Amino acid sequence: MRLSDFGESRLIKLIRSFSGHGAGDVVLGIGDDAAVVHNRGPFTLLTSDMMIEGVHFDLSYITFFQLGYKILAVNISDILAMGGKPKFFMLDIAVPSSFDSRNIRNIYRGMKKLADIYGVAVVGGDTCSSGHDLLLSATLTGEAARPIQRKGAQPGDGIYVTGTLGDASLGLLLLKSIDSIAIAKQRRQINISGSTLSYRSVSPLLRQFLTPQPIPLKRTHRITSMIDVSDGLFTDLGHICDESGVGAEIHSSKLPLSRTLINTCRTLGKDPIDFATRGGEDYRLLFTDPSYSRRDAVRIGSIRRKGRYIIYPDRRRIAFKDGGYEHFR
Amino acid sequence: MRLSDFGESRLIKLIRSFSGHGAGDVVLGIGDDAAVVHNRGPFTLLTSDMMIEGVHFDLSYITFFQLGYKILAVNISDILAMGGKPKFFMLDIAVPSSFDSRNIRNIYRGMKKLADIYGVAVVGGDTCSSGHDLLLSATLTGEAARPIQRKGAQPGDGIYVTGTLGDASLGLLLLKSIDSIAIAKQRRQINISGSTLSYRSVSPLLRQFLTPQPIPLKRTHRITSMIDVSDGLFTDLGHICDESGVGAEIHSSKLPLSRTLINTCRTLGKDPIDFATRGGEDYRLLFTDPSYSRRDAVRIGSIRRKGRYIIYPDRRRIAFKDGGYEHFR
Repeated sequence: MRLSDFGESRLIKLIRSFSGHGAGDVVLGIGDDAAVVHNRGPFTLLTSDMMIEGVHFDLSYITFFQLGYKILAVNISDILAMGGKPKFFMLDIAVPSSFDSRNIRNIYRGMKKLADIYGVAVVGGDTCSSGHDLLLSATLTGEAARPIQRKGAQPGDGIYVTGTLGDASLGLLLLKSIDSIAIAKQRRQINISGSTLSYRSVSPLLRQFLTPQPIPLKRTHRITSMIDVSDGLFTDLGHICDESGVGAEIHSSKLPLSRTLINTCRTLGKDPIDFATRGGEDYRLLFTDPSYSRRDAVRIGSIRRKGRYIIYPDRRRIAFKDGGYEHFR
Repeated sequence: MRLSDFGESRLIKLIRSFSGHGAGDVVLGIGDDAAVVHNRGPFTLLTSDMMIEGVHFDLSYITFFQLGYKILAVNISDILAMGGKPKFFMLDIAVPSSFDSRNIRNIYRGMKKLADIYGVAVVGGDTCSSGHDLLLSATLTGEAARPIQRKGAQPGDGIYVTGTLGDASLGLLLLKSIDSIAIAKQRRQINISGSTLSYRSVSPLLRQFLTPQPIPLKRTHRITSMIDVSDGLFTDLGHICDESGVGAEIHSSKLPLSRTLINTCRTLGKDPIDFATRGGEDYRLLFTDPSYSRRDAVRIGSIRRKGRYIIYPDRRRIAFKDGGYEHFR
């Protein structure tokens, strides 16, 4: 049903139905001038993100369910990257008035699926008209006994990452090359620059972009600095170096690459290291820790006093700069 | 300078320069994955709002400074309406890439002006590209020892409002009738449906819409329910009645009307009571209190068991329903 026929009061009821009471900390959820939540511990974390149609996503390749899932995922990733536990979520949506109310329900369903996994309570949600595009704007709070910043890395610390890199950005490249994901799925193949890829074989790459899985670290007491890989390894490691006043050295051979990334790059004649170092949106955690090794993450290099280098198996030592996406350029 | 030439890192520096440390509660402001703030007291309030060009405002009549001011004002109003003290603010802005960086600075300046008055600390701010329009998305937190809800009004309570009603909505009507506020200012007059109004005489109405002044109540201990008048008196009082399960009776003769509203309505042949009861965006506080009178607010009626009536000087007793703006209709 078109939103203009659906009416605002039914919409508020719909959104209220997704509003949870996570762990009894929500005193008052959606429906008053502000939400009321219980304070726990000494620190509160606050993060926010916008996702705009035509800029951050395209409805030809992402479903409404995935959109709702993803905007919460990227916010959870920010809270995890501070060593925090995600708590309370507010989602504002602006939509063209011809929008179908079922789409809003599906955005909330996707969001709720991930919220339930993390025990996140939805405490706010506003829906209003937009001029042209679909817009999502989200705020997530978290709590942390000891917030971990980008600042704090020390020379000698190991540099760790919690999962494979590059999958999401290659996934996005594939999604951008198709007219419609429904058709690609039906044909069971994706055609890109003269190559044909089976849909099933590349679907983990698409999933990594569409529905990233933020995974918290269990042991954080020795971690000296942390960030999530949203803009690409070079850029995000660069932020740690900038804030900590240190350098970094990483080994290309140690970068965790998925089998799917390697195979797909081979077919397309592309370099997987490029995706792993410059591609964004993987939402893995990147951190520094004086420990020699960890079970829950892959060591890809070490913090140095200065300079930023990537070392190749043939011993080439190449300086890197921010290689990520600069908005507005 | 166009934002595309200005660059993201300079933009982040610009935004960081507006990031405050209000009362030492901000442990970490803009520049990491999330802000870190100290918890105080048992409850935290959370509210968020979006403002979209072409939907909530038009750049022909509002300046960037006023925009920044207003988005914080409407959020402060929500926190005050919960009996809370505003604390931490996050402002995300999405802009077309041709946007001038000075405009962003002016948005932040307007926001900062009000933030300083209220001791609000700016702890987050993201800027990204938008497809077409300028979008602002804001989140404000607050603290309250005893949050005041819309629920709680009792039969016999007085209904109070903290300032004049209707000015903002008449102001908006005037703003919509002009092509450019700069030209109207220069010509010193506004022409609307055959009448000519002096710009100076109506400017308080314009100001009430463009830069509303949220004013906190000092004594809140006897207040039983509260809301801010954003959608119009009938609608917002209706929310109190709905949530509290009560009725209400207001007297048209007791509604606080500004001299400017009365005079301008007379010139235009319009009914000021219409603006005062149905017009939104005044951001006055509307509350119920068993006290017979208060110094800081005007009593406009009483809470009843059921029914919703407005009583006119000629003793007509007219039932009212939600008369406000339904989005999407």
